[in-house]
Amino acid sequence: MWYRRDVIAAREFTRADLEELFEVAKYMERYARSRVDFLRGKVMALAFFEPSTRTRLSFETAMRRLGGDVIGFWGAEGTSVEKGETFADTIRTLDAYADVIVVRHAHEGAAKLAAEIAENPVINGGDGSSNHPTQAMLDAYVMWREFGAVDGLNIGLVGDLRHARTVNSLLEALTNFNVKVRLICPEFLRPRAEVLDYVQSRGLKVSFHTSIDEVIGDLDVIYVVRIQRERFLDPLEYERAKGSYRITLETLKRAKRSLIILHPLPRVDEIDHRIDATPHARYFKQAELGVPLRMSLLYLILTSG
Amino acid sequence: MWYRRDVIAAREFTRADLEELFEVAKYMERYARSRVDFLRGKVMALAFFEPSTRTRLSFETAMRRLGGDVIGFWGAEGTSVEKGETFADTIRTLDAYADVIVVRHAHEGAAKLAAEIAENPVINGGDGSSNHPTQAMLDAYVMWREFGAVDGLNIGLVGDLRHARTVNSLLEALTNFNVKVRLICPEFLRPRAEVLDYVQSRGLKVSFHTSIDEVIGDLDVIYVVRIQRERFLDPLEYERAKGSYRITLETLKRAKRSLIILHPLPRVDEIDHRIDATPHARYFKQAELGVPLRMSLLYLILTSG
Amino acid sequence: MWYRRDVIAAREFTRADLEELFEVAKYMERYARSRVDFLRGKVMALAFFEPSTRTRLSFETAMRRLGGDVIGFWGAEGTSVEKGETFADTIRTLDAYADVIVVRHAHEGAAKLAAEIAENPVINGGDGSSNHPTQAMLDAYVMWREFGAVDGLNIGLVGDLRHARTVNSLLEALTNFNVKVRLICPEFLRPRAEVLDYVQSRGLKVSFHTSIDEVIGDLDVIYVVRIQRERFLDPLEYERAKGSYRITLETLKRAKRSLIILHPLPRVDEIDHRIDATPHARYFKQAELGVPLRMSLLYLILTSG
Repeated sequence: MWYRRDVIAAREFTRADLEELFEVAKYMERYARSRVDFLRGKVMALAFFEPSTRTRLSFETAMRRLGGDVIGFWGAEGTSVEKGETFADTIRTLDAYADVIVVRHAHEGAAKLAAEIAENPVINGGDGSSNHPTQAMLDAYVMWREFGAVDGLNIGLVGDLRHARTVNSLLEALTNFNVKVRLICPEFLRPRAEVLDYVQSRGLKVSFHTSIDEVIGDLDVIYVVRIQRERFLDPLEYERAKGSYRITLETLKRAKRSLIILHPLPRVDEIDHRIDATPHARYFKQAELGVPLRMSLLYLILTSG
Repeated sequence: MWYRRDVIAAREFTRADLEELFEVAKYMERYARSRVDFLRGKVMALAFFEPSTRTRLSFETAMRRLGGDVIGFWGAEGTSVEKGETFADTIRTLDAYADVIVVRHAHEGAAKLAAEIAENPVINGGDGSSNHPTQAMLDAYVMWREFGAVDGLNIGLVGDLRHARTVNSLLEALTNFNVKVRLICPEFLRPRAEVLDYVQSRGLKVSFHTSIDEVIGDLDVIYVVRIQRERFLDPLEYERAKGSYRITLETLKRAKRSLIILHPLPRVDEIDHRIDATPHARYFKQAELGVPLRMSLLYLILTSG
Repeated sequence: MWYRRDVIAAREFTRADLEELFEVAKYMERYARSRVDFLRGKVMALAFFEPSTRTRLSFETAMRRLGGDVIGFWGAEGTSVEKGETFADTIRTLDAYADVIVVRHAHEGAAKLAAEIAENPVINGGDGSSNHPTQAMLDAYVMWREFGAVDGLNIGLVGDLRHARTVNSLLEALTNFNVKVRLICPEFLRPRAEVLDYVQSRGLKVSFHTSIDEVIGDLDVIYVVRIQRERFLDPLEYERAKGSYRITLETLKRAKRSLIILHPLPRVDEIDHRIDATPHARYFKQAELGVPLRMSLLYLILTSG
């Protein structure tokens, strides 16, 4: 199901796809701190037109733990993009050298375009404000690992749910499972209508809330993304709102003992650093599991099984 | 003939050198998408003082496909060059770590200077506006692969033939073969007199033309390089001229069916993108063959056979 | 003594530690130009918030010669630090991917903080103006290799001895040996009182001099660091002083034949380039030995022996 497949949007993947991905990722965990030669002789190209630490380094680490090699660029400086080369020509060139291309770009649709151009598989490492499918796969994988299953979970999403590409992709991925989703954000930062229409048409149960306090007691997972001051027209409104979308020790007083807190990182101040030491914090574990998850992804795409 | 040899200028290489390089490159094609351990334990340093995507990534890919490792820098930011270190000291340092150094630099003569300083072999990855020998080797290799031989070909070079280092190097390389070269450019963008004198003294047959249309019907190969607006004193003259040096579907109507179009890339708009889908386009294939060609080069330089 | 140990400051290492390090480094010299698989499956992360060529590339080369892999960033551009991520979160992320982290940072204490955060070992690749322990280990190693022992040497340090972190670390490392140290600098560029107090309390014999000429005849080793014009309040004073702290062929006329000149590099003009060709120059050899020294360090930290 995965061999030589492009990974452009989370919505392209079925429950069976994700379960296979998760099973292989779990198996890969044993090699995530050592090395195995499953992808020896394969080269992954990174075409990162936009900055990234976590996505880039976890892909790199995953490829190297599997015995493969990595080439590419991050940031457009020092590349032929500066000389006026088209995106298409840059992708064609990487396609001539590598066996798989990971694209990150500020413009929506860049990964899809790359996939149409390249003969080799293309993985979307985040484009525009809509898609970051491998992050969504990772997010769902962390839930699956922590609770043994995604079905039955009560999941809160908090922050700027309109512009965070991880949120869009995660909502799409969650349509494959029987979960309840609480969207916690100011009204004007709700996911776009087309995203909501899509996930609800696929049967995802979502409800809307304007404060964490309303729902914290029921949640199994709370997934936090940044909420930026610049999104608010009125700075005073931001000052009033921000307490409602920030996780503090106070917030957690009414939480289930088993609640886990996820965050795609980097965070600024939307999670109090004192939370890091609590048993709820799972965002660094989440970053760590990015390696076996991406090992699984690369393995499934690059080997015919 | 190749072991531990510096590669500074195309003119240093004989027909026998190039034929050996091509034969080994052809053999390496079988490993260009997998991996072989011929250079295991060898480290290549990249000293790229000037931006590059293709040259850098094809050298990196070549080294990795051969089981070797890569260190270095591209762009002078973040290196000790910024702290005022001399070019010589930087090269000496890389020489202390690596087994071969690839230098790319805006100043003519940089690679030669590096070769005088370093004990290990130095490869010129492009310096100034005169030399880019590995690109010229690749260009000739593509012709050799496509037609079975370079001898007998009718080769058109079009664009700014004065300032393109790939053109100078290619002309030098072609003096080893029995070919006809058509130089297609405005008079003031002809190769410098010293270059023309050199290649003609070596017996290369060249003729001058100011429009592609004059010669397109006879060509086996057309090699296109950019022609920059800034080179023209009068912008109107540029507007008048540019149609003569741009390849379009219209241009190809009178071409041989077997004509191939090469370009060192990146291109801006000197080849219409609709050409990409025609059987004449060979510039992406050319990029792809950069890997086995450079595998051959690194193998010949770093192993005693 | 070394397994999974952090390397933050030179003063944490005993004579026995250093002797073990040197013995293993000497053994590693045989692999410094080839490859051995002692660290196969290990990943080193570089967190270089500050530019570096030598430290970065010698760590990279060392890791690759040992069969390990390297990930990371150099320069904060294009990383999540730009998005406002804290230093702590960046380190935690690298800790989630890699087996050892090398940190370089403009702020003193950065490496220590990283070591408190990370579960995996942290190596200080230079922080603030106080610590550069692996450079000091290398400097002492070069003396040990050149003279067979460090004990008994007469060592001159010349230049800005107050702000050079390599000097502070080297003084600390030298307290483990029975050496005489000549500090050659303007009074206001002497090492800070706390550094002098510490090394003298540990029994290091130091004396103060304002010109190389005073001591050159007695020295076995002269270690040169830059002295920057900006440190002088009065530019005229700089012009008067600089001759006293610059090594020229003239300076060496009264030197022992066995004198060796070291420099952590990069240099600007504090050593006349004509010295490079004399048998006294050992700074490029010193750069070269950075590879086996760091191979030894990585090997000792990452393997349980």
